[in-house]
Amino acid sequence: MRVALLCGISLTAFLRIPPAQSQPDAALALMPVPLHVSRGEGVLKIDSNFTIALDGFKDSRLEPARKRFIGTLSRETGIPYHDEGTKSEAVLTVKTGGVSDAVQQLGENESYHLEVTPTHALLTAPNALGVMHGLQTFLQLVTITPEGFSVPVVTIDDEPRFPWRGLMIDVARHFQPIDVIERNLDGMEAVKMNVFHWHLSENQGFRAESKIYPLLTGKGSDGAYYTQSQMREIVEYARNRGIRVVPEFDMPCHTTAWFVGYPELASGKGPYKIERKWGIMDPAMDPTRESTFEFIGKFIGEMTTIFPDAYFHVGGDECNGKEWDANPRIKEFMRAHGLKDNAALQSYFTARVQKLVAAHHRIMEGWDEVLAPNTPKDVVIQSWRGPKSLAAAAKQGNRGLLSTGYYVDLNESAAQHYLADPLAGDGANLTPEEKKRVLGGEAAMWSEFTTSEIIDSRIWPRTAAIAERLWSAQDVRDVDSMYARMAVVSDKLESYGLTHQSFTRPMLQRMSGDADTKYLAVLASVVQPPMGYQREELKEYDWYSPLNHLVDAVPPESETARKFKNVVAAIVAGNASPEHYQEAKEWLTLWHENDAKLAPSLKRSDITAELAPLSQSLSQVSAIGLRALDDLQNHRAANASITQSDTQTLKAAEKPQAVLRNMVVAPVEMLVQAAGAQR
Amino acid sequence: MRVALLCGISLTAFLRIPPAQSQPDAALALMPVPLHVSRGEGVLKIDSNFTIALDGFKDSRLEPARKRFIGTLSRETGIPYHDEGTKSEAVLTVKTGGVSDAVQQLGENESYHLEVTPTHALLTAPNALGVMHGLQTFLQLVTITPEGFSVPVVTIDDEPRFPWRGLMIDVARHFQPIDVIERNLDGMEAVKMNVFHWHLSENQGFRAESKIYPLLTGKGSDGAYYTQSQMREIVEYARNRGIRVVPEFDMPCHTTAWFVGYPELASGKGPYKIERKWGIMDPAMDPTRESTFEFIGKFIGEMTTIFPDAYFHVGGDECNGKEWDANPRIKEFMRAHGLKDNAALQSYFTARVQKLVAAHHRIMEGWDEVLAPNTPKDVVIQSWRGPKSLAAAAKQGNRGLLSTGYYVDLNESAAQHYLADPLAGDGANLTPEEKKRVLGGEAAMWSEFTTSEIIDSRIWPRTAAIAERLWSAQDVRDVDSMYARMAVVSDKLESYGLTHQSFTRPMLQRMSGDADTKYLAVLASVVQPPMGYQREELKEYDWYSPLNHLVDAVPPESETARKFKNVVAAIVAGNASPEHYQEAKEWLTLWHENDAKLAPSLKRSDITAELAPLSQSLSQVSAIGLRALDDLQNHRAANASITQSDTQTLKAAEKPQAVLRNMVVAPVEMLVQAAGAQR
Repeated sequence: MRVALLCGISLTAFLRIPPAQSQPDAALALMPVPLHVSRGEGVLKIDSNFTIALDGFKDSRLEPARKRFIGTLSRETGIPYHDEGTKSEAVLTVKTGGVSDAVQQLGENESYHLEVTPTHALLTAPNALGVMHGLQTFLQLVTITPEGFSVPVVTIDDEPRFPWRGLMIDVARHFQPIDVIERNLDGMEAVKMNVFHWHLSENQGFRAESKIYPLLTGKGSDGAYYTQSQMREIVEYARNRGIRVVPEFDMPCHTTAWFVGYPELASGKGPYKIERKWGIMDPAMDPTRESTFEFIGKFIGEMTTIFPDAYFHVGGDECNGKEWDANPRIKEFMRAHGLKDNAALQSYFTARVQKLVAAHHRIMEGWDEVLAPNTPKDVVIQSWRGPKSLAAAAKQGNRGLLSTGYYVDLNESAAQHYLADPLAGDGANLTPEEKKRVLGGEAAMWSEFTTSEIIDSRIWPRTAAIAERLWSAQDVRDVDSMYARMAVVSDKLESYGLTHQSFTRPMLQRMSGDADTKYLAVLASVVQPPMGYQREELKEYDWYSPLNHLVDAVPPESETARKFKNVVAAIVAGNASPEHYQEAKEWLTLWHENDAKLAPSLKRSDITAELAPLSQSLSQVSAIGLRALDDLQNHRAANASITQSDTQTLKAAEKPQAVLRNMVVAPVEMLVQAAGAQR
Repeated sequence: MRVALLCGISLTAFLRIPPAQSQPDAALALMPVPLHVSRGEGVLKIDSNFTIALDGFKDSRLEPARKRFIGTLSRETGIPYHDEGTKSEAVLTVKTGGVSDAVQQLGENESYHLEVTPTHALLTAPNALGVMHGLQTFLQLVTITPEGFSVPVVTIDDEPRFPWRGLMIDVARHFQPIDVIERNLDGMEAVKMNVFHWHLSENQGFRAESKIYPLLTGKGSDGAYYTQSQMREIVEYARNRGIRVVPEFDMPCHTTAWFVGYPELASGKGPYKIERKWGIMDPAMDPTRESTFEFIGKFIGEMTTIFPDAYFHVGGDECNGKEWDANPRIKEFMRAHGLKDNAALQSYFTARVQKLVAAHHRIMEGWDEVLAPNTPKDVVIQSWRGPKSLAAAAKQGNRGLLSTGYYVDLNESAAQHYLADPLAGDGANLTPEEKKRVLGGEAAMWSEFTTSEIIDSRIWPRTAAIAERLWSAQDVRDVDSMYARMAVVSDKLESYGLTHQSFTRPMLQRMSGDADTKYLAVLASVVQPPMGYQREELKEYDWYSPLNHLVDAVPPESETARKFKNVVAAIVAGNASPEHYQEAKEWLTLWHENDAKLAPSLKRSDITAELAPLSQSLSQVSAIGLRALDDLQNHRAANASITQSDTQTLKAAEKPQAVLRNMVVAPVEMLVQAAGAQR
């Protein structure tokens, strides 16, 4: 449940579509869906007698994991637990088979086996990684029943489909404090993601402290950066949750912030200032000077003392080549070395950097652009251009990750993310050998339009759908089941400290001053930010733009609108109950009447004044919807009450207003169309 | 605004009583109210040009404070800010006069002067403490206006009335993790409280790591305790917010947890186990053995390496003397030393402990019971028995603090806390010299009925009212103004990371399983936990009792019920508008109709099943209210529609049900009485 619904109206007949045969039991709100689940009869009660004991191999991460598990369980149920870890009487016994790698490796065994009987539970796993995943599954199984909290009797055998299940956070465009990173790592753990990709540098800021090159943050960060000890803490924090940390330092482009302190790295003349605009910028490193590579080599060396992961991401995306074109020395260098174009120059640069990465015993990772015919086969390609380039890399012998379809900053629906598969499209035609080179994928959270207050809502709960795509079997694709389970997991994530549900209310309150936010919340509950890159087309934004408007305060996907659309779909399909009609009517009435109540208070500030046309439009659209609904319910002649002007009103309402999409328009158009089709 | 209101109905005519002459402008939602406020014309805009620079004395706490200020302001407004701290062009200039003590001292100057013009702001203070307070005032001044975010033109001169403004948290009965402590320190900073009193040991647990005596936590903590480095971090965290940390190790009683690992300290035979019940327990330290004092001395010595504050709290409350009575050696010792009763024996113990505390250069603090005629004059008395004992201490020459009236775990109203004054009652008759010995007060959060999920709601926002009592002038006592400002401050506190508003929703969701929580939220919005110690009379509780019922999920004070009562008060007083009648009617209708919708889902679990009679009673009471309202509005003859059975229904509904008070009953009784009085 979201805040929006609290303000909405009754949804007595929440559309719970019965799960298809091959789908998991909807009553088990597990996410990601495990590989094998076998339900039994009865439940294991979770009361104050609950204890958990560790048995088997003693990994240093297990005792902290056990403590956190107890803490979470206690918060979830309100029951205080003994934390004595006695082996003989424990309700949940955890048996760890053996050691896992000192630095978590790609492809390590992450499987676990969980058996719950009415009196005991047993979690076994070959190593600590599986144990940590199994504990999260157990926590997801805890639900309220007529007899209090319990876990259903069940046997689960589980392991992931892909070994690389990541979340990238861009902390460079808008800096994100340590606690934001930590709570998102908690979220990742809950849905069994295992790679945190930390995008640490950009034109707009350099966020990682270097002691060798202090001006990187000294001049390139606005004072907002992570100290080395903070980064080490995050690596440790992640490791304790079964998560690897892959740092990214994007080069040779996206590098303006480097040049503020070290202009000698750049291909242009400078001086450079921290970039305040968004978009693709000209500055690029100078690949012709040996001093550039010396700098990069030393810098990578320093960073590898902080980030032990085997992989090191060097970006490589979106070079426009303008600084190279404008620099005669670089042109001369290209001629002398037979580099026919800027792509060839970048390949030269990448090849040099790859050697520096390898010299520090790391495997290089980069975005699509780093792939060239002669790219070493161990280089991992992160695809942002699409499944085609991912398949191409696999065919060429390189391993890769999918991020296309997983850009969570673009405000697509959870369903869209969910159905994007790393092995769909061109990937489906790969040989089994080539398919193995597709390691998985990464949700990508770019941060032009997010602050620490907003970011959780852009990542969660939709990233849980991506996590399931990357963990669960390829044929687990029931969107309705996913949404039903995601609603439960979303609540859990919020209670683990993420703020994706609660962030709206305080933002509405600040926009409203001392006005009641109730009517603004009604409007907020049915609008969405524009999808893709449309937001930037609707209004100019830069780093200075306050992110304090309604578009920033609403989640990317309107739960209310989605449910309304489901009700409308049932009506239009002709299989609606009277309750469906009643619900649709109540909703449309609420929205229709809201403008009269909201409008007066919108004038109070510029930030809300821009919402007046949107609010009015919602009212008009809902009025049309009410008439169409009435026509349908009473089987009246087609278009009995829908006029030409109504059609124009709907057409106009399709366009974003105040940089927001009115999500009621499409379902109302469905109603109008269905009414019109009546004979 | 609370969640409850979101689910409630329109409150279009929120009762904003105009401030009395001597009260601060209600439009300035400052809390605590400053000593002198002078409003000017216009505002200082807070936009992306805002900068803040530090000038004057460089205290190490200032730069972190400036950074946090920028972070908070950015979160509050959604505007990213430069953080370059350039002096010449800053919008807000902070001038620090000089040094403050290396360890923050009681009575240090905390004053500041804040001047806001339409173009600039200047904050000056003699030291970092005043700067930190002034920054919080500035943050409270930031509001939304027709032109976006701004601060009103204003000049403020401010300093506290009392030098000791504390919050005690009992982390022993229910352990509270570090992040709970930190976010509550953030809350304290926001309302200018300056002492965190950390109640670290109890019968139910010992929460501070000792390296000399590792079994204190090894056997006495269930594994839930703070490491020494965590405690040092909290001391530092608090110091960075202008807050002293006074640790409390309660002795000679409330000490069962010490004895689990070190039974030789006890007066009884043992063996001892961690106490799982609440209440006053028999175990007491053995004051007759030198080894006891040797232990205490070494332990205090160790703790003073962690806690640098000049004050050290040794508890001393609630000894029942039973272990002493039962021990012949102790009886013999009392005879031999002429100690006529257990009070005398405790005085002997306290005097010994006071010397140990003094030997480590600390000033002893204790609860009422430590005061004896020969108590050294520097010992500070914390009064939990009432203003009388506080005044008695002051008369005897000892300094003291008031905690009576500030027990926030007892679910009293903010108004009750607000009106409790350290210098009321017997305190009012003290001489000026004696009054100076009253140092201030402390909110006390005892933790029998709280978990880390619930605790913020028990402390906030009501503790802001206590903070104002202790900071602002004695005659600042307008309860309506306080509630209006507290509502705004409450929102800010929530956005600073406290969870006192958001905690309800996830708890209701967990109680409901996958049922919609909307109707449960309506019930939740008008009930309150029992006041004082009544909860324990209604049901048996111990450490094992799950705190996951509705009584745990609702705030101590129902905002909805309070506002409804205000509307009813206006109706009864005969100065209600038609809107008042309309509001009352909408509310009563909502509550009346709620039971039919809620009742079916309550059967789903034991935790909600117990709410059925309460929900039904709310419906009945509201129906009576609707009829009385109708009688009043239509000036119908007295008792036109209220029957004898209605009166019995109301009488019955006064009693708590499911350990909850129905806060609608009293206002409905007011309506019935007013209707009955009509002629």
